[in-house]
Amino acid sequence: MATGKINVSVENIFPLIKKFLYSDHEIFLRELVSNATDATLKLKHLTSIGEAQVEYGNPIIEIKVDKDNKKIHIIDQGIGMTEAEVKKYINEVAFSGAEEFLDKYKDSGKDTGIIGHFGLGFYSAFMVAEKVEIVTKSFKDEPAVRWVCDGSPEFELSEADKTERGTEIILHVAEDSTEFLEEARIRTLLTKYNKFMPIPIKFGTRTETLPKPEGAKEDDPAPTKEVDDIINNPNPAWTKKPTDLEAEDYKSFYRELYPMQFEEPLFHIHLNVDYPFNLTGILYFPKLTNDLNIQKDKIQLYQNQVFVTDNVEGIVPEFLTMLRGVIDSPDIPLNVSRSYLQADGAVKKISSYITKKVADKLSSLFKNNREDFESKWNDIKVVIEYGMLSEDKFFDKADKFALYPTVDGKYYTFEELIEKVKDNQTDKDNKTVLLYASNTEEQHSYTEAAKAKGYEVLLLDSPIVAHLLQKLETSKENISFARVDADHVDNLIKKEEETISKLSDDEKEALKGELEKVLGEKSSYTVQLEAMDSNAQPFMITEPEFMRRMKDMQKTGGGGMFGMGNMPDMFNLIVNTNHELVGEILNTKTAKKKERLINQSLDLARLSKGLLKGEELTKFISRSYEMIK
Amino acid sequence: MATGKINVSVENIFPLIKKFLYSDHEIFLRELVSNATDATLKLKHLTSIGEAQVEYGNPIIEIKVDKDNKKIHIIDQGIGMTEAEVKKYINEVAFSGAEEFLDKYKDSGKDTGIIGHFGLGFYSAFMVAEKVEIVTKSFKDEPAVRWVCDGSPEFELSEADKTERGTEIILHVAEDSTEFLEEARIRTLLTKYNKFMPIPIKFGTRTETLPKPEGAKEDDPAPTKEVDDIINNPNPAWTKKPTDLEAEDYKSFYRELYPMQFEEPLFHIHLNVDYPFNLTGILYFPKLTNDLNIQKDKIQLYQNQVFVTDNVEGIVPEFLTMLRGVIDSPDIPLNVSRSYLQADGAVKKISSYITKKVADKLSSLFKNNREDFESKWNDIKVVIEYGMLSEDKFFDKADKFALYPTVDGKYYTFEELIEKVKDNQTDKDNKTVLLYASNTEEQHSYTEAAKAKGYEVLLLDSPIVAHLLQKLETSKENISFARVDADHVDNLIKKEEETISKLSDDEKEALKGELEKVLGEKSSYTVQLEAMDSNAQPFMITEPEFMRRMKDMQKTGGGGMFGMGNMPDMFNLIVNTNHELVGEILNTKTAKKKERLINQSLDLARLSKGLLKGEELTKFISRSYEMIK
Repeated sequence: MATGKINVSVENIFPLIKKFLYSDHEIFLRELVSNATDATLKLKHLTSIGEAQVEYGNPIIEIKVDKDNKKIHIIDQGIGMTEAEVKKYINEVAFSGAEEFLDKYKDSGKDTGIIGHFGLGFYSAFMVAEKVEIVTKSFKDEPAVRWVCDGSPEFELSEADKTERGTEIILHVAEDSTEFLEEARIRTLLTKYNKFMPIPIKFGTRTETLPKPEGAKEDDPAPTKEVDDIINNPNPAWTKKPTDLEAEDYKSFYRELYPMQFEEPLFHIHLNVDYPFNLTGILYFPKLTNDLNIQKDKIQLYQNQVFVTDNVEGIVPEFLTMLRGVIDSPDIPLNVSRSYLQADGAVKKISSYITKKVADKLSSLFKNNREDFESKWNDIKVVIEYGMLSEDKFFDKADKFALYPTVDGKYYTFEELIEKVKDNQTDKDNKTVLLYASNTEEQHSYTEAAKAKGYEVLLLDSPIVAHLLQKLETSKENISFARVDADHVDNLIKKEEETISKLSDDEKEALKGELEKVLGEKSSYTVQLEAMDSNAQPFMITEPEFMRRMKDMQKTGGGGMFGMGNMPDMFNLIVNTNHELVGEILNTKTAKKKERLINQSLDLARLSKGLLKGEELTKFISRSYEMIK
Repeated sequence: MATGKINVSVENIFPLIKKFLYSDHEIFLRELVSNATDATLKLKHLTSIGEAQVEYGNPIIEIKVDKDNKKIHIIDQGIGMTEAEVKKYINEVAFSGAEEFLDKYKDSGKDTGIIGHFGLGFYSAFMVAEKVEIVTKSFKDEPAVRWVCDGSPEFELSEADKTERGTEIILHVAEDSTEFLEEARIRTLLTKYNKFMPIPIKFGTRTETLPKPEGAKEDDPAPTKEVDDIINNPNPAWTKKPTDLEAEDYKSFYRELYPMQFEEPLFHIHLNVDYPFNLTGILYFPKLTNDLNIQKDKIQLYQNQVFVTDNVEGIVPEFLTMLRGVIDSPDIPLNVSRSYLQADGAVKKISSYITKKVADKLSSLFKNNREDFESKWNDIKVVIEYGMLSEDKFFDKADKFALYPTVDGKYYTFEELIEKVKDNQTDKDNKTVLLYASNTEEQHSYTEAAKAKGYEVLLLDSPIVAHLLQKLETSKENISFARVDADHVDNLIKKEEETISKLSDDEKEALKGELEKVLGEKSSYTVQLEAMDSNAQPFMITEPEFMRRMKDMQKTGGGGMFGMGNMPDMFNLIVNTNHELVGEILNTKTAKKKERLINQSLDLARLSKGLLKGEELTKFISRSYEMIK
């Protein structure tokens, strides 16, 4: 048996690094600015512990694009490198300087915010450059060094005449990457990846208007001066302590994150945890619409203030991906698959921490200012209802503050609702029936009929509400939900008392026959004679709860019974045998007049349920104009 | 000045390869099965040109999961490796055997279908395995070899007792990757990535029922036998010549691609090009709904029959991402950013080739069987209309076959439409006005009014149609579109003749005053008196085209004017001064009766336009029941 060591030849691996290190070539700028930031933070740390006897000052990082000469410069005023360090850190691929530094300064260096991971970042320069130069001068008293490499992978090393401390990277941009010589492109990239990095980043200058000197005339132009254009905010709100921030600070950070978003967020949650994982961030509840799909990909994920992605799927529970804001954690493994993320213990803990913080925040908002919470309910309910459906732990917490609004603008918790309605809305089988409308306009007449009985009618209009009702019915005892148009109101909540019918059984039989004869092929309606209050509507169309709810559930996916979405709609035609008009229909002798009465009544009932359309509606309208005259 | 060579140490690079070679760890199986396939295809080639004096036979690849011992086996019957080859291909990272092979057999080896690219694929095994074994026997007369490596990167090499030709890879699965020891997981992966690879892949066995022997009794169980479970179809339809395929073959391949899809595709397009790039594939037009978002990510991208991704954004023009099917091309650069893809010359050519093929297919369908094309129009129009909007070249071609259906089910091309309507629908300014409805039910009465004039009314109900109309109006001359409810029909197409009003100017003035008084706060309506046909509706509500179209455009994004989506709806109330009822209103002396007449008429007009809702509708219905009695 022989043993040996697998050999990696640089000629083979280098082209791969150049082509495939990152699937997105634009990443090179993020990596180089991260390196510049690390070099500066390292110097800051060394001066603070007295290991570097130099003035730290107010270092910045400068990015310059030289389109004519096809060059990009990244210049820092950080720690710099000696010749020995260039040989060690640059000439040896995948030797991470950052890791070594953190290792060496284990105790003092913990909170330095240093980003570097594997030391490969620098080589990403070759994804866009045909030649890369490094000109660097260490903070130590050693000569400056120039390193040049055309990616061959041969390099040249020589002395340089740089006198200021720090490192300058010069990219000689390759033909296929000239897009990165556009100033607008670089500005976009800096704004995307480096907007909140901890060292100021200068990209060109801008003109600032100064106050006019005293005694200046009205039409004298105001004096101006050129100032550095700093593209980042080195101290974003999430890196600060909640106690150091006012409500206005959170709002203005929201505007910084979403400059195109004109609406203010409803409230925020400041995340801040050290153990067992490291996570900071601010989540915002925006006003949400009922369209669940368009609101995702708004939370931004950072690692030590470097933007990583706006796809937080797998890190934040799905129902919270509708929120906005920032999460910053060095503990979230990057570049791994979603399924791996979902199995990762740290990520699971992060996810349940975020869920808990959100639930706690909602709970305290509810307790501390219920009126305000109620006023925001319609804008946040989708998230809460979705959370109640998908996370049992969240359901248990949210059950205390989730609200059930009525069509009249009152808001109940579930417990309050039951307390309020149980006397009046408990049926003869001891089940408390909770009535709801999904649309006050469309179900207006049905809602009025229920309110006339003193019943509370909820307004439940979220797209996923059918699923939530299903869950509530199984997790609570002796309750059920029914939409107001599911049946005649006396049948929705069946009490012991019976209304006596004005019609005899024979008359009813005759009436039913006559109705069915006129309905004829329109027989998608099941005729149902009911002895109702004589003031109730004479004709009424209802849609049984079970089938309709199953169909609603199918529409929003995952639920209901298979294939039910394709079943035809099912309607009943309820006829109030105690209404005067119904008596008149029965007693009309002329067949033609009887038919006209039935048809017009049926049309009105269909109109009330939103079923009279197209040609039938046009005919109804013409007939009605005739009747006015 | 010193020069030198950048050094890559295997200790540093190996952990990176293990962790980050692919962001998705599951890729390991695809890579190893690709290697096994290549090994088999190489042997096939060598036997075919007489360089390997062995029987090629019917080789298969076998995958075995040994959950108890935490092992996965990938076994092929291919070319195998000698000890020297193991040293060369395995011990040297990134030395691609496939490239060398293709290079050596440049002329004969062109169409072998060999996949390998960079020779890194094998190392992806270390993403999931803590130890990897290779047991291999070359087709040459040399002893078998065993290679073992725990990723340290030390390896052991020894003689093995394998007697059959080929290579067996044994993965000792690491603790954090035990998910891959689940048979269901492996089956899913094989189905995802290897379903159409060219060498049969066996994964376990399945029971096959045999025909009963002659003379068997009714209740004798049918005999069964265990057969290899081959998970792939090595000869998928797109690799065959169009002339060798029947319509049924395309349909059955569609079912293979989308087993959960019950609806048949409408038609297919077979792609097949060698130069200037290599591309094969089959695209299908499915029945499309009007929801543009849910239909994407259905086209699968393959490279030499290996599944790569179902995100073809950047490769296929956006409007065609709604299609389904397969594209297979070795010329599409993988692992690069979308912006890079979009700039890539080869990809641009591929994209415009696909667009052209689709346009040609649609054109030939239109020409060869117009009736059939018309019957499919509603299911494909979104793609075509979207294409016309986004690609000018496609617009020019589609202009010949894009159809404009009428509410009566006739279908015109644009040219035919103009020919048909220009005499009757050209207004006094010589503009041909094309009338349309977006919903036959909602705009029924308006449609009827236009049809009564002999006008053709189109039915244009796609979500993006407002944008298309805007484009047509600017690219064609002397035409404009108007929705039937945009104005009274005589105003939509203004002719020279004027209808004489039965009312005098004084009477009109008086009527207008009375109407506006009753309308009162409902004054979102602008009252407009018109001398219309006495048989036309007495009251009518219209919604001017311009504003409504801008708002429609805003709804589907990209277009209209900024902020217009938030403007309130604008309506006109058109009163027909020649209608009997209007005369009656003017002549009614009792103020109360006059008001009742106006209100009831207004309600009917609003009903016709779908504006009477909620409480107002309930009241209207109650009032109407009263009137019936």
